[in-house]
Amino acid sequence: MSREKDFTIQTLGPCKIHSPIALSREYGDSMANYVKDDEFILYDIEARPADPRKTYRREELLEKAGPREMIYYNPGHVHAAVVTCGGLCPGLNDVIRAIVRCLWYRYRVRRITGIPFGYRGFLPDFATPVIPLDPAVVDDIHTKGGTILGSSRGYGDRIEDMADAVERMNLNMIFTIGGDGTQKASLALSRELKKRSLKVAVVGVPKTIDNDLSFIQRSFGFETAVAKAVEAVESAHVEASGAVNGIGLVQVMGRESGFIAAHTTLAINDVNFCLIPEIPFDIEGDNGLLAHLKRRLENRGHAVILVAEGAGQKYVSDENGNDASGNKHLGDIGLFLKSRITGFCKSENLTATLKYIDPSYMIRSTPAQPNDSIYCTRLGTHAAHAAMAGKTELLISLVNNHFVHLPTYMAVSRRNYVDPESSLWRDVLEVTRQPMRMTNE
Amino acid sequence: MSREKDFTIQTLGPCKIHSPIALSREYGDSMANYVKDDEFILYDIEARPADPRKTYRREELLEKAGPREMIYYNPGHVHAAVVTCGGLCPGLNDVIRAIVRCLWYRYRVRRITGIPFGYRGFLPDFATPVIPLDPAVVDDIHTKGGTILGSSRGYGDRIEDMADAVERMNLNMIFTIGGDGTQKASLALSRELKKRSLKVAVVGVPKTIDNDLSFIQRSFGFETAVAKAVEAVESAHVEASGAVNGIGLVQVMGRESGFIAAHTTLAINDVNFCLIPEIPFDIEGDNGLLAHLKRRLENRGHAVILVAEGAGQKYVSDENGNDASGNKHLGDIGLFLKSRITGFCKSENLTATLKYIDPSYMIRSTPAQPNDSIYCTRLGTHAAHAAMAGKTELLISLVNNHFVHLPTYMAVSRRNYVDPESSLWRDVLEVTRQPMRMTNE
Amino acid sequence: MSREKDFTIQTLGPCKIHSPIALSREYGDSMANYVKDDEFILYDIEARPADPRKTYRREELLEKAGPREMIYYNPGHVHAAVVTCGGLCPGLNDVIRAIVRCLWYRYRVRRITGIPFGYRGFLPDFATPVIPLDPAVVDDIHTKGGTILGSSRGYGDRIEDMADAVERMNLNMIFTIGGDGTQKASLALSRELKKRSLKVAVVGVPKTIDNDLSFIQRSFGFETAVAKAVEAVESAHVEASGAVNGIGLVQVMGRESGFIAAHTTLAINDVNFCLIPEIPFDIEGDNGLLAHLKRRLENRGHAVILVAEGAGQKYVSDENGNDASGNKHLGDIGLFLKSRITGFCKSENLTATLKYIDPSYMIRSTPAQPNDSIYCTRLGTHAAHAAMAGKTELLISLVNNHFVHLPTYMAVSRRNYVDPESSLWRDVLEVTRQPMRMTNE
Amino acid sequence: MSREKDFTIQTLGPCKIHSPIALSREYGDSMANYVKDDEFILYDIEARPADPRKTYRREELLEKAGPREMIYYNPGHVHAAVVTCGGLCPGLNDVIRAIVRCLWYRYRVRRITGIPFGYRGFLPDFATPVIPLDPAVVDDIHTKGGTILGSSRGYGDRIEDMADAVERMNLNMIFTIGGDGTQKASLALSRELKKRSLKVAVVGVPKTIDNDLSFIQRSFGFETAVAKAVEAVESAHVEASGAVNGIGLVQVMGRESGFIAAHTTLAINDVNFCLIPEIPFDIEGDNGLLAHLKRRLENRGHAVILVAEGAGQKYVSDENGNDASGNKHLGDIGLFLKSRITGFCKSENLTATLKYIDPSYMIRSTPAQPNDSIYCTRLGTHAAHAAMAGKTELLISLVNNHFVHLPTYMAVSRRNYVDPESSLWRDVLEVTRQPMRMTNE
Repeated sequence: MSREKDFTIQTLGPCKIHSPIALSREYGDSMANYVKDDEFILYDIEARPADPRKTYRREELLEKAGPREMIYYNPGHVHAAVVTCGGLCPGLNDVIRAIVRCLWYRYRVRRITGIPFGYRGFLPDFATPVIPLDPAVVDDIHTKGGTILGSSRGYGDRIEDMADAVERMNLNMIFTIGGDGTQKASLALSRELKKRSLKVAVVGVPKTIDNDLSFIQRSFGFETAVAKAVEAVESAHVEASGAVNGIGLVQVMGRESGFIAAHTTLAINDVNFCLIPEIPFDIEGDNGLLAHLKRRLENRGHAVILVAEGAGQKYVSDENGNDASGNKHLGDIGLFLKSRITGFCKSENLTATLKYIDPSYMIRSTPAQPNDSIYCTRLGTHAAHAAMAGKTELLISLVNNHFVHLPTYMAVSRRNYVDPESSLWRDVLEVTRQPMRMTNE
Repeated sequence: MSREKDFTIQTLGPCKIHSPIALSREYGDSMANYVKDDEFILYDIEARPADPRKTYRREELLEKAGPREMIYYNPGHVHAAVVTCGGLCPGLNDVIRAIVRCLWYRYRVRRITGIPFGYRGFLPDFATPVIPLDPAVVDDIHTKGGTILGSSRGYGDRIEDMADAVERMNLNMIFTIGGDGTQKASLALSRELKKRSLKVAVVGVPKTIDNDLSFIQRSFGFETAVAKAVEAVESAHVEASGAVNGIGLVQVMGRESGFIAAHTTLAINDVNFCLIPEIPFDIEGDNGLLAHLKRRLENRGHAVILVAEGAGQKYVSDENGNDASGNKHLGDIGLFLKSRITGFCKSENLTATLKYIDPSYMIRSTPAQPNDSIYCTRLGTHAAHAAMAGKTELLISLVNNHFVHLPTYMAVSRRNYVDPESSLWRDVLEVTRQPMRMTNE
Repeated sequence: MSREKDFTIQTLGPCKIHSPIALSREYGDSMANYVKDDEFILYDIEARPADPRKTYRREELLEKAGPREMIYYNPGHVHAAVVTCGGLCPGLNDVIRAIVRCLWYRYRVRRITGIPFGYRGFLPDFATPVIPLDPAVVDDIHTKGGTILGSSRGYGDRIEDMADAVERMNLNMIFTIGGDGTQKASLALSRELKKRSLKVAVVGVPKTIDNDLSFIQRSFGFETAVAKAVEAVESAHVEASGAVNGIGLVQVMGRESGFIAAHTTLAINDVNFCLIPEIPFDIEGDNGLLAHLKRRLENRGHAVILVAEGAGQKYVSDENGNDASGNKHLGDIGLFLKSRITGFCKSENLTATLKYIDPSYMIRSTPAQPNDSIYCTRLGTHAAHAAMAGKTELLISLVNNHFVHLPTYMAVSRRNYVDPESSLWRDVLEVTRQPMRMTNE
Repeated sequence: MSREKDFTIQTLGPCKIHSPIALSREYGDSMANYVKDDEFILYDIEARPADPRKTYRREELLEKAGPREMIYYNPGHVHAAVVTCGGLCPGLNDVIRAIVRCLWYRYRVRRITGIPFGYRGFLPDFATPVIPLDPAVVDDIHTKGGTILGSSRGYGDRIEDMADAVERMNLNMIFTIGGDGTQKASLALSRELKKRSLKVAVVGVPKTIDNDLSFIQRSFGFETAVAKAVEAVESAHVEASGAVNGIGLVQVMGRESGFIAAHTTLAINDVNFCLIPEIPFDIEGDNGLLAHLKRRLENRGHAVILVAEGAGQKYVSDENGNDASGNKHLGDIGLFLKSRITGFCKSENLTATLKYIDPSYMIRSTPAQPNDSIYCTRLGTHAAHAAMAGKTELLISLVNNHFVHLPTYMAVSRRNYVDPESSLWRDVLEVTRQPMRMTNE
């Protein structure tokens, strides 16, 4: 946050090769165009007329993604690798497929290698063979959830081993599909490769089902995740309203950011309490969750609670350190609430029925829905274009509805949160009519 | 079990009223017909020519369901009640709707009352008002899961209170939609009403998502349940195959009968171990689950286990007595297996990832799929016809593809199980290629 | 029709080889069993106690399908072919996959050949190469609609060419997945092969999305087709009820039998007129469709009509002969009704909006839903068992919920129709409340 | 286009009433805020550093939508009307529901009236009664397609009659959900009401399934429409690839703009030719569609064509004037192509099978998918806030991911088109690999 914004993109060197893709270089001829390196997008678009901005600094502008007329690599010399890391997310296969198809059909690259099971697949102590990729292999993979390459967490501390593997395979292009930890490691890997004077384009496609990466308008798979979470909340509502003092409790993903919970709440009428990591809440006390829940049951006879896994950690955090991806261990707020609410109802002599649903794995593993498929196709395609133009240490991002190049270090420098003062959260409050604050004091 | 089969149906008295439904009484005129009381269906249809049966006894034949020409009740005098009991199941609303619509439109019955929250809604100490039902109320309810009437378990020990309520409301027709416990109570209620010389038709629609009621070819909601369970197994398979030694573990309903697990296995290729209550298995030992699982991981790198909640109870049963429906408490085999397998992998130094999915509430609460809707519509319609004809203490059942009247006491006398020697289980073994026995001795 | 029922199954010769499948031969040991040749199912199960049947004739009994202990073929000598013919139907790929997997995994057959594009793929003047089949090829095909083998209509007149191809390829087992025309041709092919003294098992899996094959309880893909047809009727209902005098008109498959239309009507509340080939109707006249439609619009402001493609052919039939499958050309009743109703509304000065939907290709090409997948898996598996046992000129059928062997000539001898006096059609009338007859006179 | 952009919003008068909604007026207190009238969004966000913009003019800025601290109306005096016009579109019910719920729950407005069947419902010669709206009425309507109010086209020439009705009903707030024609009429109605010195807020929610309204980033229902269109193309692909020289031809909506066709193409791999109104194409000639289709069939054996209804009008336009919405009559390009391609194949002696699918009504009438539901909820909520603040002659729009007020006259002044030089169309060309131009000269 203290760091200044600088959206300047690094390149491996000058582009001296003509792209094999035939496009127009003129605007106005009704033909699709190459993208030029001086086409930019504004990031910050809010304005007050009373305080008009005077000028943009170059570093505030985001470079447009897309095919360049001149590229860095001779396609015949390219050996590209694709790796998927971290937890599953809808759309992984769509991204893989788009990268492969764009490299193969548009640039005629013929050496594309899938790294198995995340960064682990680079390591010498791991025996699984790499996966040759071509259009036949990826033809139908978008109809399946998960990733055909497999995934794993961690190994960000094995950068030298990974760089050795890159050298051994003569890779000059690496596509890393993963989240915060993955992209931090990809940055470290790129720097190690530079130290070794290797010209390797490292291009990331940001993946976070929680939608919590900075400068990224919407992460792929997020809409599909919300659509599946909606099904779980519908079930919880049916269970709740079919029982005397029925309580439906659903836990969804959202370690540090409650975007899935917030959007799910807006998509469906039936959430009465939406709990997210960004908004503290008390369980006890007159303005706590239990008191409000009791009132709701008295008035309406049933209630639905949607909780993001990272919410209410003050009650369950055990300070247990981090997992292999570098994420801190979360206490299980869903099971904790289930137990606390059940106990509360007993102590209040309230005959109640609580049904707890955790649909997380069913959400993560679902295939991308069409709108996410479109998005993944375009992310992957733009990643291929960026790498062919010798651009590196960047992520493909959608900003203000334009595909842009985003320096990797900018994206990993901080998280994206649900702003309690945003229009999004305000709309959640309107739909749930839950108290703006559920804390005592 | 000791009791002989006797499919004879009880009636409240002679039918002296002409049905307001206009149908043909002749076969061969290409017009839909009334059903006559001497139309029957064979129950047992397996045969060996070497041992030909000579004759049927009357008690072995099942009476066909359907509209009768002469009915028992004057529609203007009918006050019908509908009650849904026990756990949720896809199609409850479809059945309610069909009963209401058939009574209203076909017989012009105008007093139909929904009892809220199961048998509890009959009790004097329960304040929720009853729900007047008409076609407008039930118009769209089949598009929603659950039951608009609400449900609850138990209260089978409050028969006199329930009979009092029936008297108080002047009900002469009760439709009970529920499982084993519900139908036992409906039988007791009917007998109590008879003792009081009340003429009340008590007609049940059998509900068991586990498909474990005897003499009932297929319980409503079962196909929908399987379709949803398939989604969970697909997720488990995606998770398993995307990780190094990935294990997907799914628990589905099936307290005493593994029909959901067996059918789900047949619907999807990816189950490697299907565990059901009817087939004992060992966890330890060379022919136990863990040993077989290890071999599978060594050969294929991932595995999917589907377990019915009632399987392997010898490992988890705590002899804790019964729940309100009279079902015995089950130990949680899913969580037990999760913990045992995780521990086993650690002890074997096997880096493995286990993902556990319990989709039960998402399965129960889903709306019926079209084929189940058709079935529910027909069950409800036939229930209405049976009651109007003064038939009582019966369930509507589908036997050998014919809708029939089944004496309630026959259905509650024993359970339906997956026969290890059946074609169904043989086909499961073919699909999973799991050992026929996973026991040591 | 004049022919008597005779369900006796033909075999190629005595079974002298032990099946490689290990099953139990005893009942009562809780182990899955071989099926014996003297296990049968009753076909006709309706009964009247007043008129008890005394005995069964052998020819009235249907042989149970399933794995035999002794088989005819040495698996190492088997070369099996699979061919799919006629129009698409949900589940084709499931059947192919089950046949391949059962032959490969259970019997260890290693030569399985897919014939491309129906019987056409056998012909010498057709260049498309055959498709070698193994479990890897068929692994995921059940998630896709259509058939990976391709299909075509006709060529039933090229039996000798087909027999030549069978000889050339040294096939000794042919699985034909197709309808009436396909199975007639398979019978002719089998007879030609017998004439040439070739021992070739010809086993069919009956396919008819219309559900109109005799002695076959339910054709595969039918439930999926109904589920998709329901979506079209839902759309028609939304369109109709959203417009002033809105009329939704949906045409579904059903050349000679209205099963899809009837079941779709039962699955959804919103059909007001269900028109099928089996029930004649008039368009004009006081008891004709238009008059009833007008009354419905006056009373309710909108209407939904569901018509099977073979209904009302007296209005549109052009006596144009047959298509390549030997089916007679149908006039387009859907477009005819659209035009007649629109004209009628104009002539009556009725401001009406008609929306016409023909979802046929979207229905045919959809993947099988889980319950159909189960069914297809079991059909294919039983077909493989039958062929391995040297049984021939038979179809796998489900009769009274048992999988049985059905002589092919029985199935092709006549059609299955919606009986206007059946419980099915009576229930349709209850749901639509349309007149039992819409004819004048 | 000649007209200058001016995004200034009109108001009915000063806001002197405190909003009943309790929100924070400070930023930084982590509480949801009122939106102030000096918060704006930039519309044009592309930039080139070489040519830095110096300042914004006020008229270029779009006012942020959201709840104001001070409102114009006393909620107790409000009588609001909601009307839906034109063709069906997924999400109509979601918008209605959000408007009603926001007015009712947040502002405590108690008089909300649904106008039946579009503007027609205002007319004195139309008898259908208006529909009182409250939260109970709209509770579940978002689960259904279409509009509970009904819709119709036209009546934009009956402004005086409509204004009379507004006076008669004492409406002071009108929400118009509709497209170009609807919003033109709403502008005329607002001006007529002003002439009569009536203070009526007229707020529109722009509806166009074609996504062709200017200054509107994405129209509601569009993503759902694409998702359904994808299903139709999947079917066409299955049909095409299952037949010898199979051709799948799908027509989707898109009168003047090919957004649905373009997005559908990106969502699915299988379109080979995407034809849209914005890109002219020839059918004949060496660079025409038929020649390219023939090559595709020769190389791959099947092809899928996706055509927007407004494409290729030079072949089918009959200059027949306009429909009731003021849209010009389109010739049926889908049926024309079907006939031309079939004829071409015959003339070329190409045995081909063409399957034609028109899923338009099934697309229009489907319920909104979750992401569209969220969008509709927020559009409706923001419309209610705008009207309560006395803002008028505006549409709620999403611009650069912010909800803004857009003057109605700006939106109706021109259409939104697929720019052949856009990144969207370039990506379509990459996916289909169709020629950039299919014209001869």
